[in-house]
Amino acid sequence: MNYKLIFQYLGKVLSLLAALMLLPLLVSLLNRDLEDVRGFLFTIILLLAAGIPLGRLKCTNTRLFAKEGFLIVAVSWLALSVFGALPFYLTGAIPHYLDSLFEAVSGFTTTGASILREVESLSPGILFWRSFTHWIGGMGVLIFLMAIIPAVAGDRALHLLKAESPGHDPGKLVPKMRQSSMLLYVIYLVLTLVQVVFLLAGGMPLFDSIVTAMGTAGTGGFSVMNASIAGYNSLYCEVVITVFMFIFGINFNIFYLILIRNLSGAFKNEELRAYFGIVVVSIALITVNLTGTAYPTIGQSLRYASFHVSSYITTTGFTNITHMDWPLLSRMIVLVLMFVGGCSGSTAGGLKVSRIVIMFKEIKRNLFQIIHPRSVEIVKLDGKAVDKGVVHGVCVYGCICMFIFCASLFVVSLDNMDVETTIAAVATCLNNVGLGLGKVGPGGNFADFSLLSKGVLTFAMLLGRLELYPLLLLISPRTWRKV
Amino acid sequence: MNYKLIFQYLGKVLSLLAALMLLPLLVSLLNRDLEDVRGFLFTIILLLAAGIPLGRLKCTNTRLFAKEGFLIVAVSWLALSVFGALPFYLTGAIPHYLDSLFEAVSGFTTTGASILREVESLSPGILFWRSFTHWIGGMGVLIFLMAIIPAVAGDRALHLLKAESPGHDPGKLVPKMRQSSMLLYVIYLVLTLVQVVFLLAGGMPLFDSIVTAMGTAGTGGFSVMNASIAGYNSLYCEVVITVFMFIFGINFNIFYLILIRNLSGAFKNEELRAYFGIVVVSIALITVNLTGTAYPTIGQSLRYASFHVSSYITTTGFTNITHMDWPLLSRMIVLVLMFVGGCSGSTAGGLKVSRIVIMFKEIKRNLFQIIHPRSVEIVKLDGKAVDKGVVHGVCVYGCICMFIFCASLFVVSLDNMDVETTIAAVATCLNNVGLGLGKVGPGGNFADFSLLSKGVLTFAMLLGRLELYPLLLLISPRTWRKV
Repeated sequence: MNYKLIFQYLGKVLSLLAALMLLPLLVSLLNRDLEDVRGFLFTIILLLAAGIPLGRLKCTNTRLFAKEGFLIVAVSWLALSVFGALPFYLTGAIPHYLDSLFEAVSGFTTTGASILREVESLSPGILFWRSFTHWIGGMGVLIFLMAIIPAVAGDRALHLLKAESPGHDPGKLVPKMRQSSMLLYVIYLVLTLVQVVFLLAGGMPLFDSIVTAMGTAGTGGFSVMNASIAGYNSLYCEVVITVFMFIFGINFNIFYLILIRNLSGAFKNEELRAYFGIVVVSIALITVNLTGTAYPTIGQSLRYASFHVSSYITTTGFTNITHMDWPLLSRMIVLVLMFVGGCSGSTAGGLKVSRIVIMFKEIKRNLFQIIHPRSVEIVKLDGKAVDKGVVHGVCVYGCICMFIFCASLFVVSLDNMDVETTIAAVATCLNNVGLGLGKVGPGGNFADFSLLSKGVLTFAMLLGRLELYPLLLLISPRTWRKV
Repeated sequence: MNYKLIFQYLGKVLSLLAALMLLPLLVSLLNRDLEDVRGFLFTIILLLAAGIPLGRLKCTNTRLFAKEGFLIVAVSWLALSVFGALPFYLTGAIPHYLDSLFEAVSGFTTTGASILREVESLSPGILFWRSFTHWIGGMGVLIFLMAIIPAVAGDRALHLLKAESPGHDPGKLVPKMRQSSMLLYVIYLVLTLVQVVFLLAGGMPLFDSIVTAMGTAGTGGFSVMNASIAGYNSLYCEVVITVFMFIFGINFNIFYLILIRNLSGAFKNEELRAYFGIVVVSIALITVNLTGTAYPTIGQSLRYASFHVSSYITTTGFTNITHMDWPLLSRMIVLVLMFVGGCSGSTAGGLKVSRIVIMFKEIKRNLFQIIHPRSVEIVKLDGKAVDKGVVHGVCVYGCICMFIFCASLFVVSLDNMDVETTIAAVATCLNNVGLGLGKVGPGGNFADFSLLSKGVLTFAMLLGRLELYPLLLLISPRTWRKV
């Protein structure tokens, strides 16, 4: 194990976090909130004290192998969360450190699950930091998926990444990695700013617009209102957020294709079509199901159905209602949407639409193989054959998710809440949604869970965000065994 | 498609069913229940009228291909159910034919889910028939898994079967198929009779003993008491049933190994060890969880925990309590046990322990592969390498189950019951358990579901029992398309 290299990368990540924390520090300074300023300053000093020496470690062997690559990602996300939780704790915004850690992990993993019963009493600096973690986390995911892993030893890593996030071909976005990453950040930043402008146009205050846009871009879902987006009671803003949630659930390669005016390439993308199809069908089903049961008019039903379908499938977790008295079918649909997730190569969580598409095609292929045992049909995506190993990897990924889901369910069940709340709590954390059902649905929060459950849910958020493998490797004894 | 061959087999199955129905007819005659006698006689005549001409169809091409083999199985089970439902309907025991069909499918698939609110008012002939369908269904599963599929075109079919029910090697049980089938029936019959003797020794009436033993052997779960096994209030009988449920969840190859005194071979079987391990750990966890919450003493908790773990994992579905006020963890464990199921090559349903073991090993292998990309580790079971195609088949099987589970959930959700009841209803039918949670848990039944839900649950029972593929092929348009 090349520990030096791992620590070196970790040092760079910590220094970067220190730099990023200057922004909430600035917000606190503008608000003359001395306690916040002290909290952020102290954290920044700690980050630099740890980050600079680590980052300057001399490392003779700088070649990244898959093992080190995955561990760097796992350790980075853990370190981000451990340090990122400090401002919450030091300013007294969240009295217990472990609760602060839950909130920070929820932020960086772009989940948006909160242990806070109410947020409107928090200072602007802390509120900004809370949502800024979403934005950083979303950017981190893009780096992770499109820059770090492809850097891990060329072709093999590319294959690994393919298994990890099927459907996009990271190496070909733009020939050079640095350029490709830069382009991603620019798209990410510009889209965020465009959303800010749209929200401002609807009369949302500047601060709220920025925070909400950051929560949307990272598909996070922290809000500055106790009632989330329902607090603004603005149909216009809800429509803007619905659309932008949908947009941030799209593979970023598609935006690149649109940028270079390859529109037919963009709109022929199978994952995008499936994603769009699932969204439309879900909205239609839920709207019909809600009309006459939860809401009197079809217009109201459509408003709440489309917002929540967009919110759950992109794993954002905003809500525009204060409590959910939906019939069971609608609740079941959004529960399953949490597992579906957005497109690969986006900031969304969940299994990802491309994995679902590949699974579905492989099932069809398997059936065909029984009837025609000598056929050599293969699974194709966007007209190209998907490697057998990738197809198998996708199916294994689905199985791992089932196992982890069940194991987490057992621990959280010890809190003896109702079945709906418990299942939704695990599903929403594992898939990085943040909004669940029942007591963790609209209007709810995670405050009532035991420390043990919060711990397991924290771990589930990290597992889901890093697509399982990095964290599983971190805790696997075989990783640390000397060969 | 070789329709003649399919119809020929179907004819034989119908004639066999007519012969088997003589037994409940005899019970009705002994009870001088004229209405029942008429119902059974009429059904037998119908069966023979359809079965004899079909069975005598001249068929020049008698070679079985995989496609025909699977379709024969699917059509046979459907036909068994359609005709097997007639006695319930004709005698007026169940007023609606579709409800009768639900009950018959539940019987032949060895599920044991009932739409009857109470059963004690039913006549002995009907009660006998109800449980006899479990016994027939269990025997059918053994034929299906160990005789029919291996007959489907030699080596390739063997491979198919391996993918279908991993862990056992059907061709090698006894060299000749006919002998091997006979041996299975003898083991099945003898074990059932041994259980009858044990139950009689505990003071259970002869009729009840036979019916209960048939329900146990087929891992079905229909009882002649409204309160299921709780109606006998006998600790001795509960222990006997617990043990026999466990026994019928074991791969029948193990009994063969024990018969030929290869004890070390039997007890070294990995699936058996895993099965035993899961049972012991589940009983321990639930006992601890129940003590002090649902029941005051550890003895009581152990009594109800061991009975239900055995009942749920073997997908039998008997219960020895009249209502379930268990804490959430215990309920979640039994919910997951439904999906685990018994061993492959037994009459139990569910995913089967060997599939779970293979999935688990494949996940471990996948993690190892990331750290050591050049390693060529393979998944082994009982010391032998498991074919890569089989491992992949197992993972795909898991994914299909997830898809079918979600799709069924949506339809049953339209009834707008609580989440626990709905999820458990689908899980218990798809895995052929019969006992669920909530309104379909101990003391409950399926009477309150809509016709649509009952239809979907009926289909789910058939899907689960036939390990998905035969029925999926039956409804797949590609099967019927001319090449």
